[in-house]
Amino acid sequence: MKKAVILLSGGLDSTTCLAIAKSKNYNVYALSFRYGQRHEFEIGAAKECAQLYHVEDHVILDIDLRSFGGSALTDNIEVPKKRKESIPRDEIPITYVPARNTIFLSFALAYAETIKSQNIFIGVNALDYSGYPDCRPEYIKSFEAMSNLATKAGVEEESQLKIHTPLIDLSKKEIIEKGVELGVDYSKTHSCYDPDPTGISCGLCDACSLRKEGFKKTNIVDPIQYAI
Amino acid sequence: MKKAVILLSGGLDSTTCLAIAKSKNYNVYALSFRYGQRHEFEIGAAKECAQLYHVEDHVILDIDLRSFGGSALTDNIEVPKKRKESIPRDEIPITYVPARNTIFLSFALAYAETIKSQNIFIGVNALDYSGYPDCRPEYIKSFEAMSNLATKAGVEEESQLKIHTPLIDLSKKEIIEKGVELGVDYSKTHSCYDPDPTGISCGLCDACSLRKEGFKKTNIVDPIQYAI
Repeated sequence: MKKAVILLSGGLDSTTCLAIAKSKNYNVYALSFRYGQRHEFEIGAAKECAQLYHVEDHVILDIDLRSFGGSALTDNIEVPKKRKESIPRDEIPITYVPARNTIFLSFALAYAETIKSQNIFIGVNALDYSGYPDCRPEYIKSFEAMSNLATKAGVEEESQLKIHTPLIDLSKKEIIEKGVELGVDYSKTHSCYDPDPTGISCGLCDACSLRKEGFKKTNIVDPIQYAI
Repeated sequence: MKKAVILLSGGLDSTTCLAIAKSKNYNVYALSFRYGQRHEFEIGAAKECAQLYHVEDHVILDIDLRSFGGSALTDNIEVPKKRKESIPRDEIPITYVPARNTIFLSFALAYAETIKSQNIFIGVNALDYSGYPDCRPEYIKSFEAMSNLATKAGVEEESQLKIHTPLIDLSKKEIIEKGVELGVDYSKTHSCYDPDPTGISCGLCDACSLRKEGFKKTNIVDPIQYAI
């Protein structure tokens, strides 16, 4: 069985991505981060999803991105609660965490190299997304090219590291439908940027809005609770 | 004054790189890591060097690269103590830490983005070096290209992030001569991969060997103590 490292936040996208990797018969190693996010509740969701899918191993790393500040997801800056109807593609929201996916993928690269895997899965998508620069296909391609120069694999072997982005061209609706087809239990996933202390989703942040809109376009009922 | 982030280990190379950045009138923000290295003694050296050069700020991050294992610098694997006379360029030593520079540069990128700097300095060199893939010029170029797709700067502005590698084409001898010219106090720097508990360098590991050979080729006496 081929090995794959998957970045798992416990959200709708990364959990669907995990289900896709499993459906393609990868032996999955999950990687999650406590990075000082407001919504650390998602770590519990990541653990549950990792267990449900019988991943080979689940590493949870502590890295404190608050050391640099600069994002509503890690700082005391308020998480915006009113979503614009259409997201202008050239505007980067305040919830953007500087270089977050680059840091996450770098650790995934270290993990992949250590377990001798040539596969990394990341659930980014560039359609119904929050407008972060590090979710775009051209960024992912560039990271992949860099990775193949960074590691032993790139130097010693013919084999090349591949970054799999099975969701990148899908709408939120299509992601949910794909997940349901693969039997994903979305009640175990967590998307909200700013949940209440019991973990109930706010229903108003970017992540909640994209999720709610996505479910609305399917015939499927979102099984999680929202405050609004 | 232009701002720059510098990766500072407190070793000979990164300290010389810091002196070069200062000589070019950059306002320097230093970044160091506790990553589970055997030679955590270097953090003390990094602090001293940062103070000596009056850096604007010095962030020390804790990241545990031992979570993945796989290197003599972080694991219980023995640090090799007999240096080959010539280093074959296609052989990667056991002291290589998977994706280390990629992880370090990713955090530097986050830091640079947060303080709105377009400059990162890293003291890699590809001549008298340990043969790590992530020290090669083609790797650095590729990381720079990726960075410019990863961040707000790459999307919103004309300005491009630059990764400065002032040592990349220099021999160890030339690095030391450059440093001395700039007034670097090498007694404050620490290079050894496997120092004794009091911080005295082993004199036999790769890092010690490269340093000793470098000083031998100059007329300068290495001011640090070696066990052998």
